[in-house]
Amino acid sequence: YFILQATKLSEEQRPVLLAPVLSRGWAIVENRDAIFKNYKFENFQQAFAFMSYVALNAEKMGHHPEWFNVYNRVDITLTTHDCSGLSDRDLQLAGIADEAAGHFV
Amino acid sequence: YFILQATKLSEEQRPVLLAPVLSRGWAIVENRDAIFKNYKFENFQQAFAFMSYVALNAEKMGHHPEWFNVYNRVDITLTTHDCSGLSDRDLQLAGIADEAAGHFV
Repeated sequence: YFILQATKLSEEQRPVLLAPVLSRGWAIVENRDAIFKNYKFENFQQAFAFMSYVALNAEKMGHHPEWFNVYNRVDITLTTHDCSGLSDRDLQLAGIADEAAGHFV
Repeated sequence: YFILQATKLSEEQRPVLLAPVLSRGWAIVENRDAIFKNYKFENFQQAFAFMSYVALNAEKMGHHPEWFNVYNRVDITLTTHDCSGLSDRDLQLAGIADEAAGHFV
């Protein structure tokens, strides 16, 4: 298989495609074309199980998060280095992360 | 099993017990009683395999890292919240992390 080059979201796409993501608790990062979200779980086991789920999918997509973890907290920032900004891959990975987190609610 | 309360390193223990850890590339964090180290791997697979190894051991010890990852990079900070500073658990977890990273050299 091969991975296509990521394409930055166009000005027309941005409001339409970002709206559902922002409504799920993601926020636009200041001074950077990126989105972030903080997740809080019950404990480290859940946080790392979440991270493992996201990691396997990220590797499969060839698109990886920037993330910080301490105990039950995971802070994720998504952006696409290939196109220096947000691409559909970030939206897809955001969806995967929210889906994964949903298993622990 | 049960986990004993962590004890902060004493002033006598610090230079002796920290020396080997510092010689392995760990550094003292400024304005905080903590140590940190940056690891760089070949790719995300290796970085996350490293994190998984550390995570399983951290959970077993009941002592967890603060860490940041992006692609092949993992930055770890260790400190012990129970005793508001460095304890022998941090030194032990630093040893485990270095051992894990050694598998990828």
